Amino acid sequence: MGRRNIRRTVTRVETAGTAPTVRRSPDHVAMEEPLEIRVGPAGPAKRAPLAVTMRTPGDDLDLAIGFLLTEGIIRESGDVHTAQLCAGDATPNTYNVVDVALAPGVAPPEVDPTRNFYTTSSCGVCGKASIDAVRTRSRFDVAADPTVVPATTLTALPGRLAEGQVGFRRTGGLHAAGLFTADGELVCLREDVGRHNAVDKVVGWAVREGRLPLSGHVLLVSGRASFELTQKAAMAGVPVLAAVSAPSTLAVELAEESGLGLVGFLRGTSMNVYAGAHRIKTD
Amino acid sequence: MGRRNIRRTVTRVETAGTAPTVRRSPDHVAMEEPLEIRVGPAGPAKRAPLAVTMRTPGDDLDLAIGFLLTEGIIRESGDVHTAQLCAGDATPNTYNVVDVALAPGVAPPEVDPTRNFYTTSSCGVCGKASIDAVRTRSRFDVAADPTVVPATTLTALPGRLAEGQVGFRRTGGLHAAGLFTADGELVCLREDVGRHNAVDKVVGWAVREGRLPLSGHVLLVSGRASFELTQKAAMAGVPVLAAVSAPSTLAVELAEESGLGLVGFLRGTSMNVYAGAHRIKTD
Repeated sequence: MGRRNIRRTVTRVETAGTAPTVRRSPDHVAMEEPLEIRVGPAGPAKRAPLAVTMRTPGDDLDLAIGFLLTEGIIRESGDVHTAQLCAGDATPNTYNVVDVALAPGVAPPEVDPTRNFYTTSSCGVCGKASIDAVRTRSRFDVAADPTVVPATTLTALPGRLAEGQVGFRRTGGLHAAGLFTADGELVCLREDVGRHNAVDKVVGWAVREGRLPLSGHVLLVSGRASFELTQKAAMAGVPVLAAVSAPSTLAVELAEESGLGLVGFLRGTSMNVYAGAHRIKTD
Repeated sequence: MGRRNIRRTVTRVETAGTAPTVRRSPDHVAMEEPLEIRVGPAGPAKRAPLAVTMRTPGDDLDLAIGFLLTEGIIRESGDVHTAQLCAGDATPNTYNVVDVALAPGVAPPEVDPTRNFYTTSSCGVCGKASIDAVRTRSRFDVAADPTVVPATTLTALPGRLAEGQVGFRRTGGLHAAGLFTADGELVCLREDVGRHNAVDKVVGWAVREGRLPLSGHVLLVSGRASFELTQKAAMAGVPVLAAVSAPSTLAVELAEESGLGLVGFLRGTSMNVYAGAHRIKTD
């Protein structure tokens, strides 16, 4: 429970010389385990499994709360009656279930009986429907947030994120999400094998801290900006999402329609601004 | 339909000088759209949605067939009666649904009525259960496959993959999966915003070509090796999975238990072998 990496002996092969060289040496591998999120009304009745995500153990309650917030199931920490990390029914020694009891009056997620799966925000039948679903569920008006961030503040962020990526330095196998103020101060950093989990852990922390909406903040992700990550930023009221790598078309479209600033390829001294260019101060 | 990237005008900001410079210029952004996979018996009755994935359009039938194969729902191309790319019910101009009619005698996926979602192979309540689920579903004995690959062949593969990554060169936003022979010959390469989709597209192609099990092959992925990708390799009978970046603990454990060779950090002239070191020839 809670281990974020495991030390293993690996075989290192180097083929540069006239014959390959082989040596056995220790390596740290990023931990990956399933986490099942159960949700339902408070009370003795068993709550239903809603989703399973493959995650790196640690900050699991934040992960579950961030997931429920970014899916529009809860709106604030007061919507959660209790959240407990517990063992699965058949696996007493693993802690891979978070059981969330909702506060009175909070509706459990609607499950469409004609579909076999919980319809997340990214489950539209076309991109436009996916974007509309996020806009319907979101409670924050990101477009009305006046946040502007200097370009020189943004270019300093990847270095600060990297400083905090302790797990990545050890394993090379963890994505990171960092929440910064518009002045470039790091306020929360989380690492996970799944980049959506790293973002959910940051958002869940912010929910518990009563910090939503996250106006005046920048969310930086270590990889690419997909629709899913942009959705999570919009649902948490983040005005600027920055990514070290490329965005997708649907991420750009959602950012445009939601009023988010979307920055990609934030590396060295440069960046590409894909949406909300007015949020990036360059003079 | 079928567009893999879109040309957009972006704002490029450079902060290296005394004042930031700004210019507007065109950029290609990788396309992301939802794809719904429906599956059920052949006939006039409507088939049920099984999963939605956010993918880059193109090779959608292969994606659906690869998904169904790696989830253990079909075993070969003969298990599919018809597979059709079609528009969603409410969105006549988008082609974001693949409707798969199963051949007579092929059981549709079991949906656990007590759960809201289709239980994929990665939905165990602990890592061990996830591994057991793959081992139960897999029809190929990868451990019995005698494939051995020279280390110098492996180190040549990332360069060959990069040569074929046309979409990545254009957008910077696409993962790639490449299937190679044990001699290092590229036989199939697919790109997608989702790395699991890129692998499913390769596997779906191989199913249609009647090439399963993929003994004697190496599957190379452009990013990290997760449990999910290792599961897909095992289900397709691939003896060696190589990744340019790090593996996770659960990927290593599944590779060990399934008899797969698992190579990580395959870069330049070196690599780390995490499982099945006997498959990498170094003399």
